[in-house]
Amino acid sequence: MSVSEANGTETIKPPMNGNPYGPNPSDFLSRVNNFSIIESTLREGEQFANAFFDTEKKIQIAKALDNFGVDYIELTSPVASEQSRQDCEAICKLGLKCKILTHIRCHMDDARVAVETGVDGVDVVIGTSQYLRKYSHGKDMTYIIDSATEVINFVKSKGIEVRFSSEDSFRSDLVDLLSLYKAVDKIGVNRVGIADTVGCATPRQVYDLIRTLRGVVSCDIECHFHNDTGMAIANAYCALEAGATHIDTSILGIGERNGITPLGALLARMYVTDREYITHKYKLNQLRELENLVADAVEVQIPFNNYITGMCAFTHKAGIHAKAILANPSTYEILKPEDFGMSRYVHVGSRLTGWNAIKSRAEQLNLHLTDAQAKELTVRIKKLADVRTLAMDDVDRVLREYHADLSDADRITKEASA
Amino acid sequence: MSVSEANGTETIKPPMNGNPYGPNPSDFLSRVNNFSIIESTLREGEQFANAFFDTEKKIQIAKALDNFGVDYIELTSPVASEQSRQDCEAICKLGLKCKILTHIRCHMDDARVAVETGVDGVDVVIGTSQYLRKYSHGKDMTYIIDSATEVINFVKSKGIEVRFSSEDSFRSDLVDLLSLYKAVDKIGVNRVGIADTVGCATPRQVYDLIRTLRGVVSCDIECHFHNDTGMAIANAYCALEAGATHIDTSILGIGERNGITPLGALLARMYVTDREYITHKYKLNQLRELENLVADAVEVQIPFNNYITGMCAFTHKAGIHAKAILANPSTYEILKPEDFGMSRYVHVGSRLTGWNAIKSRAEQLNLHLTDAQAKELTVRIKKLADVRTLAMDDVDRVLREYHADLSDADRITKEASA
Repeated sequence: MSVSEANGTETIKPPMNGNPYGPNPSDFLSRVNNFSIIESTLREGEQFANAFFDTEKKIQIAKALDNFGVDYIELTSPVASEQSRQDCEAICKLGLKCKILTHIRCHMDDARVAVETGVDGVDVVIGTSQYLRKYSHGKDMTYIIDSATEVINFVKSKGIEVRFSSEDSFRSDLVDLLSLYKAVDKIGVNRVGIADTVGCATPRQVYDLIRTLRGVVSCDIECHFHNDTGMAIANAYCALEAGATHIDTSILGIGERNGITPLGALLARMYVTDREYITHKYKLNQLRELENLVADAVEVQIPFNNYITGMCAFTHKAGIHAKAILANPSTYEILKPEDFGMSRYVHVGSRLTGWNAIKSRAEQLNLHLTDAQAKELTVRIKKLADVRTLAMDDVDRVLREYHADLSDADRITKEASA
Repeated sequence: MSVSEANGTETIKPPMNGNPYGPNPSDFLSRVNNFSIIESTLREGEQFANAFFDTEKKIQIAKALDNFGVDYIELTSPVASEQSRQDCEAICKLGLKCKILTHIRCHMDDARVAVETGVDGVDVVIGTSQYLRKYSHGKDMTYIIDSATEVINFVKSKGIEVRFSSEDSFRSDLVDLLSLYKAVDKIGVNRVGIADTVGCATPRQVYDLIRTLRGVVSCDIECHFHNDTGMAIANAYCALEAGATHIDTSILGIGERNGITPLGALLARMYVTDREYITHKYKLNQLRELENLVADAVEVQIPFNNYITGMCAFTHKAGIHAKAILANPSTYEILKPEDFGMSRYVHVGSRLTGWNAIKSRAEQLNLHLTDAQAKELTVRIKKLADVRTLAMDDVDRVLREYHADLSDADRITKEASA
């Protein structure tokens, strides 16, 4: 089979009548291909250990997020500090396309300050778990419902959006939680929020809770997942499958402890589910720049294994992987690197290298090898790579030398027979 | 409420008759509290772009993994290169407590070499998706079943374990897959393997496939999940919920592209589900050292947001978080840092700092402040932190100065009234 034939993927019949990673037809409330991103780098992200954003940096990040195409950006509470309030006002005056939210405690003192900043909406939060009711604010459910009602009505009276969220929702009593959401839905809240504040909910648990909640409220449902046990991306996905409408993210996932759902990771996940929706809505080739901006601001390295933009996200090494990737990238790659401004790299200088990769590299260098010659050369390269990994130019040198020797041998044979 | 009262968590009634993150009683085949780890840093991890392990490093990693308590370690195929074969033999001779596996293509040439190395078991793999059947080995299902049968019978005849896995299982035809697994189960394979080679399966999809497979085969079920879309940890969890018995991991998740389920992340997840099982079986306080060993060997930084051992996994910053953590760590922390040889850090020098954290820090320094004084001082600290984040010793200096001023004022008042 020629490479050009192999590159035509049209002949592959999708295994299950369409994209096997696409929306599951049995999830009839699914929003996996129609959701909004609430980007919280300037709120949750400010709670990251290393984060200190001055006004200029906040504006730069807000503009970059807006340009990327996120639906909302969420800012630190204006009551956190005087500068926080001024920065919130400054960002509201930028005239961004996305909506601006700020995040406050469920308290009239906070709400009065928030509505004066010029935001498009206010995200209200209160702890509802027994843990937080005992050790944080010490209030009972009646108090929570009453103060939620007061704050929501007040924010609505100013003509802006209001979201009401519980905190630590998965350790809250289910009946308390549903009663609370039903009450706030009735008075016309725009969104309710579910938050896994300690980062321990599991995907099927999330699906079940959101599915139940979807039957109780008619407003939108926002979800916020911490990543302490590595569930934040999967939980966001399962929440959307169950009918959630909005997902909170931050760049590189920065936030309290090890953070929340990273924007890039969510995009990787959702791209696989519905590429069109993602590529149409967000400027994916700006992701890397956005991540660099925030990583520099909070003085961290982009993790080596970061989704999409990490150093090795599109690197292929083992012989059988490299062989198939060269024939058809869909074999081992479901994200197209070019859609994210990235490129693919096939590693050819290790002890795991196979002869197909060596032959392909030779062709890139315009050096012709038969299969038998490529196999012989691969044995030689693996032997060298057993001592140390070879860089691409080391491999190229070995290739050129081998090919030159072949040509010499060929010339000598021809001369001898002439 | 005093801090000592607050630290007693016994009075909190668990929200749902026990640990809400524990085994779900409706998953009656669940193995979340009884599973084995197949640690593949020395196989999958060797496929990581940066990985080159010499013999000495492989032995050091194998010993460290064994000492940590993993059930199996998996090594690169002995047919990859001559040194790979020698290293496999050397590790088999170490007399480790864990079982040693090697990973080969489904081919008699590979199997004959593998069984001579001294391994306790052989992991056999073949691509079954239409993509891999077309672009990788080019074989049909009849050929696959026949060669699987031959290889499995041969390895079993040597009296060692054998696992048979498909590759890219989630893009394989379900009926083909189940027929294949049923056939190999019948001839007595020890484990079958499901692999999400491209890293795109979703948690509920994994649950459904493993649940179905669990009804088809009686042997153990191993799972291998790539992390391209951030699902590798959640998929491993859902596989165990559905009855899988073995999970593949690598240190820091290193492997092809951005890798597989990281050992540390899986432990974080499973610790929350059944702390006893994890703490009893694995030496968790060695995790950090194990990760440092591998990170150094492959020349990467531990990601800032790494599970458990990352720089900020146990750092608390926002005022409401810090307040509750000081009263009871379970409010915002479900992993006990001390179980992993780590410690907690409450950040007190940011614009998000609350007065409870400041008062608590003062008490640690043996400086008494009233609530009103702590609040006044917090305003001062937030103002300073609006300009730049304060280090702990900056905060301590401000605290001491404030307290000294109070004492002076107090002394002057006393002297004046004397």
